[in-house]
Amino acid sequence: MKVKDVGERELVKLLLSIINKREENLMIYDDVVAYPISKKSALIVKTDSFVESADLLPNMKPEQVGSKLVVMNVSDFAAKGIVPLGMLISLSLPSDYDVDYIVKIYEGAEKTALSYGFDIMGGDTSYGEELVLSGFLFGLQERDKLIKRCGARVGDYVATTGPFGDTSVAFSILLKSLKAPSEELERHVFRSVYEPRARLKEGLALAERKLVTASIDSSDGLAISLYEIAESSKVGILIEDIPLSKNLIEFCEYHQLNPIEMALYEGGEEFELIVTIPPRFWEEAKSTIERVGGKLHYIGRVIKEKGVYLKVNGKKVSVKRKGWEHFRGWL
Amino acid sequence: MKVKDVGERELVKLLLSIINKREENLMIYDDVVAYPISKKSALIVKTDSFVESADLLPNMKPEQVGSKLVVMNVSDFAAKGIVPLGMLISLSLPSDYDVDYIVKIYEGAEKTALSYGFDIMGGDTSYGEELVLSGFLFGLQERDKLIKRCGARVGDYVATTGPFGDTSVAFSILLKSLKAPSEELERHVFRSVYEPRARLKEGLALAERKLVTASIDSSDGLAISLYEIAESSKVGILIEDIPLSKNLIEFCEYHQLNPIEMALYEGGEEFELIVTIPPRFWEEAKSTIERVGGKLHYIGRVIKEKGVYLKVNGKKVSVKRKGWEHFRGWL
Repeated sequence: MKVKDVGERELVKLLLSIINKREENLMIYDDVVAYPISKKSALIVKTDSFVESADLLPNMKPEQVGSKLVVMNVSDFAAKGIVPLGMLISLSLPSDYDVDYIVKIYEGAEKTALSYGFDIMGGDTSYGEELVLSGFLFGLQERDKLIKRCGARVGDYVATTGPFGDTSVAFSILLKSLKAPSEELERHVFRSVYEPRARLKEGLALAERKLVTASIDSSDGLAISLYEIAESSKVGILIEDIPLSKNLIEFCEYHQLNPIEMALYEGGEEFELIVTIPPRFWEEAKSTIERVGGKLHYIGRVIKEKGVYLKVNGKKVSVKRKGWEHFRGWL
Repeated sequence: MKVKDVGERELVKLLLSIINKREENLMIYDDVVAYPISKKSALIVKTDSFVESADLLPNMKPEQVGSKLVVMNVSDFAAKGIVPLGMLISLSLPSDYDVDYIVKIYEGAEKTALSYGFDIMGGDTSYGEELVLSGFLFGLQERDKLIKRCGARVGDYVATTGPFGDTSVAFSILLKSLKAPSEELERHVFRSVYEPRARLKEGLALAERKLVTASIDSSDGLAISLYEIAESSKVGILIEDIPLSKNLIEFCEYHQLNPIEMALYEGGEEFELIVTIPPRFWEEAKSTIERVGGKLHYIGRVIKEKGVYLKVNGKKVSVKRKGWEHFRGWL
């Protein structure tokens, strides 16, 4: 059996059944690892990688590579409401790379780390056949403030920090060679994949006030991220409204595409937060996010019936569990 | 300028000049990163990678790959006297790898981690053109127990936990196709590179009693590791005696090679500790190591004159700063 036959999801499940024998991880099957260091606090760690053959977009600048590596890691800390304290980078690369290119990657990484209030603090370097950068982010959190994927309860509101669609448009232009309706639109959507930002301020503010019951970032795609929350929490989600970026709407009109399907299935690497919030905390959550300069969009509700559904013209339609998966591509 | 023109050492120096702008790392230019979390303690992190094209030895089993990844990371914690609490693994690999092969890597890693008292707790997986495994080890330490490379003082004894030479013999057989004098010797030296162990018990015992002024592991080769301590501490080291493995002596007699040169320059990935100890602590250090089942060998002294020297027939000969370097090979 090859890795491509099982896909990333099954492979991860399998590997998780081998490790963690001491059962110390407070956040198993979640986006970060939490190691308890006292009755009150936990050490939080997370790794995410940028691999040349999988992640390098056409014409991507080295500063953008370093910056995106940081954002990929920070976004999970954002979703879990954890202050990042520092990051290591493990680098492997061929010997004939320009030193200047690598320097720019680290400059981009350090600059972006500083913008989130922490440093790249070290790492290691070794020879490899292609450029691989693994980020390793660490922090601390009070154990009673840890936000899991599995805490969503029936009746909770489902909300998100941003409109969806820019990355799906960017990938359609870059990887499927669809034409952009305008240069301005192209410039804007490209920024979402070349220079993404994580919703750290928003995530920290929500965690600090303990306003959310479950949280995840949408980096694996909107549909998959909704499924992850629903399945972990053993509930269902009914989506009533997805906030769509105006670039997506314009692009879909131009190409006669369905914007909802694009937002659900063709995105990914979109670093918005998806959270569930008890209705009694809704107003406070909304104003909390606005105070840090963000926006919280109501998109639906947690329901008892398992699965993820979309209300279309008053009818409940099942959302597919599909998006990008490593080793298998777009499913 | 290409990476191969500057080599790993210069590249790392350059990258260190870009990062760490917040100056929070208590162990800069050392083997681990230490982030202060209180007046008393620091969070310790470390990454080291196993890259297929650089580190996979002929006929190496997947369990051994996973195990060696753990040992590479643990050895630096051993040198710094830090208890490892957990480890993440970032994995990238081609889609046509056998799932079973990857499972065995993780089984090897988990088993070895458990033998040192901790778990593999998570990580990430992604597509890549070759197998790359980055380990991220984390722990905590009291700040006044942190052992640096730079603490060696004139008059200190220099000591090591083991005899040298097995890995240099193994590499000569595996990579330079030199013949092994006997199957038994081959089996024994192969174990040193296929199934190495880290000197964790020894390192923890020395740190707990604050008996050493500086410490490093010998994974970059004996000569380079001695230079690292000497240069960081702004002192010199005079080696009087290097404990040599009997396999090395037998191999060098067979091939008419100089065993001292082999031990100094041709080793590497040898996970012994090299420590400096004030003479008044010598007896206590020796018995401390013996109590945990190890052995401490006196090899020389810290001297004022900078550089690393070897006493040969009463004469002081300069040791070269050479060994393996990523991107440049054996220097």
